[in-house]
Amino acid sequence: MPGGFRDYGPGEVRAKQWILDTARAVFERFGFEPMETPAVELTETLTGGEEDASKIIYNIVSSRSQEEKSKEKLSLRFDLTVPLARFVAANPEIPKPFKRYQIGSVWRGERQQAGRYREFTQADIDIVGTASMDADAEIIAIISTTLKNLGIENFSIKINNRKILNALPELAGFSSGRLWEALRIIDKEDKIGTEKVIEEFEKVFNADVAKQIQFFLKNIREEKSAGFTTLSKQKVVEEGDYELQKVFASIRGTKLELEEGQKIFLDPTLVRGLSYYTGTVFEAILTDAPEIGSVFGGGRYDDLVMRFTGQPIPAVGASLGVDRLLAAMEKLEMKKPDSAGLRVLIFNVDQTLMGEYLAMAQELRGTGVNAALYLGDERAFQAQLAYAVKKEFSYALIYGAEEKKRGVVAVKNLMTRKQEEISKEKVAEFFYHLSPHSSTDRATPF
Amino acid sequence: MPGGFRDYGPGEVRAKQWILDTARAVFERFGFEPMETPAVELTETLTGGEEDASKIIYNIVSSRSQEEKSKEKLSLRFDLTVPLARFVAANPEIPKPFKRYQIGSVWRGERQQAGRYREFTQADIDIVGTASMDADAEIIAIISTTLKNLGIENFSIKINNRKILNALPELAGFSSGRLWEALRIIDKEDKIGTEKVIEEFEKVFNADVAKQIQFFLKNIREEKSAGFTTLSKQKVVEEGDYELQKVFASIRGTKLELEEGQKIFLDPTLVRGLSYYTGTVFEAILTDAPEIGSVFGGGRYDDLVMRFTGQPIPAVGASLGVDRLLAAMEKLEMKKPDSAGLRVLIFNVDQTLMGEYLAMAQELRGTGVNAALYLGDERAFQAQLAYAVKKEFSYALIYGAEEKKRGVVAVKNLMTRKQEEISKEKVAEFFYHLSPHSSTDRATPF
Repeated sequence: MPGGFRDYGPGEVRAKQWILDTARAVFERFGFEPMETPAVELTETLTGGEEDASKIIYNIVSSRSQEEKSKEKLSLRFDLTVPLARFVAANPEIPKPFKRYQIGSVWRGERQQAGRYREFTQADIDIVGTASMDADAEIIAIISTTLKNLGIENFSIKINNRKILNALPELAGFSSGRLWEALRIIDKEDKIGTEKVIEEFEKVFNADVAKQIQFFLKNIREEKSAGFTTLSKQKVVEEGDYELQKVFASIRGTKLELEEGQKIFLDPTLVRGLSYYTGTVFEAILTDAPEIGSVFGGGRYDDLVMRFTGQPIPAVGASLGVDRLLAAMEKLEMKKPDSAGLRVLIFNVDQTLMGEYLAMAQELRGTGVNAALYLGDERAFQAQLAYAVKKEFSYALIYGAEEKKRGVVAVKNLMTRKQEEISKEKVAEFFYHLSPHSSTDRATPF
Repeated sequence: MPGGFRDYGPGEVRAKQWILDTARAVFERFGFEPMETPAVELTETLTGGEEDASKIIYNIVSSRSQEEKSKEKLSLRFDLTVPLARFVAANPEIPKPFKRYQIGSVWRGERQQAGRYREFTQADIDIVGTASMDADAEIIAIISTTLKNLGIENFSIKINNRKILNALPELAGFSSGRLWEALRIIDKEDKIGTEKVIEEFEKVFNADVAKQIQFFLKNIREEKSAGFTTLSKQKVVEEGDYELQKVFASIRGTKLELEEGQKIFLDPTLVRGLSYYTGTVFEAILTDAPEIGSVFGGGRYDDLVMRFTGQPIPAVGASLGVDRLLAAMEKLEMKKPDSAGLRVLIFNVDQTLMGEYLAMAQELRGTGVNAALYLGDERAFQAQLAYAVKKEFSYALIYGAEEKKRGVVAVKNLMTRKQEEISKEKVAEFFYHLSPHSSTDRATPF
C-alpha cells in the first residue's frame, strides 16, 4: 500500500458508518438535502485563487486521455466546499438559500506525518445564498447537536469573526502586510498559552505591538461578544462585532440545552487556516482529546462562489472530520453502539447435512438474525470453534448426526461458553427473542 | 466539470443511499463484515498480470511527491477486488474463510459514451479462502436476496462455468489460441440471438466449428446443468460440470422462495469480461431493462490472490453496480421509499419573532420532524411560499404578529394547499402524529 494511506477493518468501518448515519440524521432534521459531486474536478476549478491549494493537490492522468490528446487537466478534490461553489455557479436556477450536505472522501498530498493520512472522509453542511447570521448560528447549532447525539459529553465550540482579526494591524499598530504573520502566532494560543504568544509578538514584532495584542485579548475575553467597538472605530470591527452579537443571540434563541461540559463561546484567537473565510469562523474540539485538534469546523465564505460567477453569493458552512472524530472516540474509549448485532455461525460438522444447514441459515435470516454458514475446509469441531471465536460470532449452532437423531440443535453462547440443547423447531424462535429488532425506536435528543 | 463525470442531486443521492442500506443489511444478514481500502493504490498492485487494466487506469501525481522524489507510482482503483487480494496477501493471519463487503467508488478512464461514466459506486461481497461451491451458491443467494429486497419483481441470474468455456476449442475443433475470439462472439448471444452467433462463427471460423457450437449450445440448454461430460471427456469439463451441479444443488438447499418473474438458470453463453475468473461466473440482469446490462455480477477467481502471495488462495465474489441499478430503477419508474420524510419550513414573516421561530424549529426536531427555518432575504409571504414549493417541503408554518396575538400558527399542507390554524402549543403534537417514527419496523423478507 502506498505511504500515507490505510485500510479500515470491520470495527472501524462500523464506527464510521455510525458516525455518518448520526450526522446524516441531524442534517436532515435541520432541513438539509444530500448532494454528491465527483472526486475528480478540473484542476483550474480547485486551484483558482487559493495559492496554497496546488501544493497539496493530487493530479490525475489517464492513459486514455493521453491518447485522446485531451486538454482537460484533472485533479482529486481536497475539500467539498470548492466543488460546491462550482456546482452553485453552474446551476444558477437552484432556489436559494441552498442547504445541502455532502459526505465523501477528499485527498491531500501533504507531507507525511505519524497519524496523518492523505485520504479522509468529510461530512459537510453548507447554506449558500444568504447573508443572515441566523444561518451561521444554525450551522453552529448543527455542530453542537451532532456532537451531543454522538454521545460526546465534553466539547467546546469556539467562535470568532475574521473581520475583527483583519483589524488587528490597525488595533495593534503594525503594517497590514504582516497580518497573516500575526495570525499564525495568535492561532497557536490554545497550544502555547497567552504568555508565550505575547513573548513571540515581542520577538517577531516589538514590545508596543505585543502590549496592544495583550490588551486586545484581555478586553475581548472580559467583555465577551460585546464591546469590540470600544477598541476601534473601524467599520470592519463594527461589522464583525455586530455579526458576533447576532450569532450569539440566534444561538441562544435555539435553546440547545447544553450539558455541563458542553460550551459555546467567543475565542478571539481562533483563526482557521483557509484564506477564503470572510466573517464568522468556528470550530469544535473535544475537551478530553484537544490534541486531536478541530473535529468539526468552518465559517462564512462570502466571496468563494464569486470566483466562478463574478458576483458574490454569500455562504456559510462546516466540515465534520470523520476520521479525526473516530480517532478521538477510540482514544476516549467511547462505547459505540454494537452495530454488528447478533451474529450466529452454523457449524458444518457433517457435509451430508448441508441442505439442512442452508435451510436453517435462511430461516434465521428471516427472523432478523445475521447467520453465516461455516464455509471453510476444516471439518473438526475445534477448528470451527476457533474460527467462530476469532471472527467474534455471538453464538455457534452445532447440528450433527447425533443431534439430528434427537431432533435438537446444540446452541453455544460464545461469550459465556455456555452450551444448551434446543429443539430444532424452536431455534428460530430462540434467536428471534434475542435479536434487537423487537425493541422500540430509540428517541434521539435534539 | 470534466467530461465523463457528473453531480448527483438530492433524489438520486437518497435513492443511492437506500440501495446501499438495503444491500448492506443483506450482506450483514449473511454474516459478512465491512472493510475499506483506500481509493489510491500502487500502480503495480493494480496492473500486475491484468493486461487490459493499465489502459483504463487513472494515474496520480502529487506536487509533494515530485518534491520528495518519491518512487511510488500511484493510481486510482478500477475495482474493489484487486485491492481485496492485496489486503488478503498482506494480512495472512486473517481467519479464513474471510467474508467481507466493501462499498466505494472506482474509476475507469474508458472512452466516453452516452450514459457511461468514469466514476461509479460498487458494493462488493467476497469470500476468500474456500474452494467450496457452497460459497459460490451463497454469493448467488445474496444477489437474489438483495434484488428481492430492493423490490425488483423480475430478474434473471445467469450462471456458467469458465472451465466449460475453456474446453470450447476442443469441443468445437479450433485452436486454443482463438478461445477469446470465440468467447467474444458467444458473449453477444443475449443481444443478437443464437442464429446470428452461429452465422458469425461460420464467417469468422468455419461451418464445422459453427455446427459444433450450435450442437453445444442446444445440448446444454436441453440438459440444464447436467450432462456436459457427454460432450467431452476433458478433465476440465468434468470439473466444470461437477461444480455447476454442486452450485445448483446448494442454491436449491437455500430455499430462496423466488417469485414468478425471478429466475436463476444456467446460461452456457455467459462469459464475463474479466480474465481473472477461473470457475463459476454469474450475473443478474433486470428482465424489464436488459439494455442496462448486468447490475450484479461476479465469479470465482482462484488465482488472483496468488499474484501477491505466490500461492493460490481460492476466492469467489460479486459486485453490485449501484449506478446502473439506479438508472434501471429510474427507467422502470420504481417507487423508492420516501426517505426524505416529513419536511416542514417555518416562514420568517416577522424578523422580531426570530427567537420564537428558532425555538419552534428546535421543538419540532425533538419530535422527529425535519424542520427548517426560512433563512433567505425575502420577507414577502409569496416568495417564501414559492421557495417552500420548489424545495418540496411537505408543510409551511406561518406565524406573524396576527397569529401571535391569537396564540395560533397557520399550518399549510403544500401538497393539498389546504391551510388550517392550530393552537401554538399543539403544533409539535400535530406533526408528531404525522411523522413516520411511530410506525413499527417493516419486516424484510429473506
